[in-house]
Amino acid sequence: MIIDGRKLAEEIERETNDKLEKINQKKVAFVMFQNTPAIEQFVQMKMKVGTRFGIDCSILKFEGEINNKNAIKFLEKILQVGPKGFYDGVVVQLPLPKNLSLDLILNKIPASLDIDVLGKEAIKNYLQAGPVNFVPPIANAIDEILKFTKIDLLNKQVLIIGNGRLVGQVASFYFSKNKIPFDMVTEKTEENIYKEKLKNADVIISGVGQPHFIKKEMIKEGVIIIDAGTSEQSGKLVGDVDPSCEEIASFITPVPGGVGPLAVISLFKNLILNN
Amino acid sequence: MIIDGRKLAEEIERETNDKLEKINQKKVAFVMFQNTPAIEQFVQMKMKVGTRFGIDCSILKFEGEINNKNAIKFLEKILQVGPKGFYDGVVVQLPLPKNLSLDLILNKIPASLDIDVLGKEAIKNYLQAGPVNFVPPIANAIDEILKFTKIDLLNKQVLIIGNGRLVGQVASFYFSKNKIPFDMVTEKTEENIYKEKLKNADVIISGVGQPHFIKKEMIKEGVIIIDAGTSEQSGKLVGDVDPSCEEIASFITPVPGGVGPLAVISLFKNLILNN
Repeated sequence: MIIDGRKLAEEIERETNDKLEKINQKKVAFVMFQNTPAIEQFVQMKMKVGTRFGIDCSILKFEGEINNKNAIKFLEKILQVGPKGFYDGVVVQLPLPKNLSLDLILNKIPASLDIDVLGKEAIKNYLQAGPVNFVPPIANAIDEILKFTKIDLLNKQVLIIGNGRLVGQVASFYFSKNKIPFDMVTEKTEENIYKEKLKNADVIISGVGQPHFIKKEMIKEGVIIIDAGTSEQSGKLVGDVDPSCEEIASFITPVPGGVGPLAVISLFKNLILNN
Repeated sequence: MIIDGRKLAEEIERETNDKLEKINQKKVAFVMFQNTPAIEQFVQMKMKVGTRFGIDCSILKFEGEINNKNAIKFLEKILQVGPKGFYDGVVVQLPLPKNLSLDLILNKIPASLDIDVLGKEAIKNYLQAGPVNFVPPIANAIDEILKFTKIDLLNKQVLIIGNGRLVGQVASFYFSKNKIPFDMVTEKTEENIYKEKLKNADVIISGVGQPHFIKKEMIKEGVIIIDAGTSEQSGKLVGDVDPSCEEIASFITPVPGGVGPLAVISLFKNLILNN
């Protein structure tokens, strides 16, 4: 039998191209369980950035009666698409409708697809440097901002405000992982202690979602404030930090246009730089 | 100071895109120290395959007085192009003009760029599974062909004909690395022994470059012949194996259209699948 080297070579070329394509043509699904103008705007922003990176982004909107069972079913169907149509990243757009369980939904996403690093498996990987090394976008945003300020965190008071899954917890993971001491206050913290810690902090990460509640008289001169809180006020997106704080803070991140765009980029960095 | 998250994000997007581009936009230099119709044809074939993979292929032709010193200088200049224009692979097209030292030239190419795996550093990496894991194209071609035949090499006589740097030695590296016993005959082998070994071989890898010198009466019924010899006969590319062998071999690779196209693909596989 004469072995046709050209034909064999063609097959190998095809296989190699498939692998190459897998590296290049990343696919991301943005899963929406509800549709408000703000959510729509967030998703569109992510779509825009992803598309600029050449990533194939799809929005998958849930339709029908919304409850945990149906939402999980919908998500499972998305995760099972395959083998060619497999997504490389699956992002559940938050906030979820009130009757859905955030934990139940987010923990459903396998670590390898969880570029938003909100499911427990992905978080575990992040904290323990597991096989998939995605960085939570908020953690990466904090990291970029702190690097920009060039602050030396040694002997500085770092304070996280709020213990929410999206900001406070992620910020605490970030500082834990980087072995940087930090403190945290939440709505359960006694008012006097809360105020004192706020006043003494050199670095504040806020993720509360209460419009402009941090006023300049509550903080220390020269503080760095990373505002990762978002809420809506008269139809506009506002942060936790009152703009007046700008007068005495050394660095401050605005909302919008601060943590947000950095978190979006970080989402795609996870996808692009981890093959 | 208000930190402009959008501007920071833009910078990160640019950096990320640069990294992405580095992954995608591979550049290969084909270095030609002489120009015969056959060499030109080989290079064009490689260019065609490389371009199909989306690789940026350039031919760099030496001009001027050809001697080792000038050739090395030319090669060094190519290896130093940078930082943006750095090549991801550098291939010296063979054969070299007679007055150049093959060793001197090939060993100049650092392992990380030596996708043809002909320099000593790249060969060492291959044999010892070093940091850069390129497979010599001829080794990969042999591997693909043997896999295609589905032969079980246990207790089979494997014979390499010729000890040249381009085929015989590479074939011996392949079998050594894969812990497959093999024998080798060269022009220095005594004629009787040479003939006997050829007659008893179950698998023959030939890399001599002597037109059609292996005749059917010299080989065993059912033998697998991988013909990696190339020479020119009346302006045509011919192999070591006489076409009459086809009648009694179980598998045989033609020249052209056998080992050649597989080796070309393997060259680019090294580039594409190793980032």
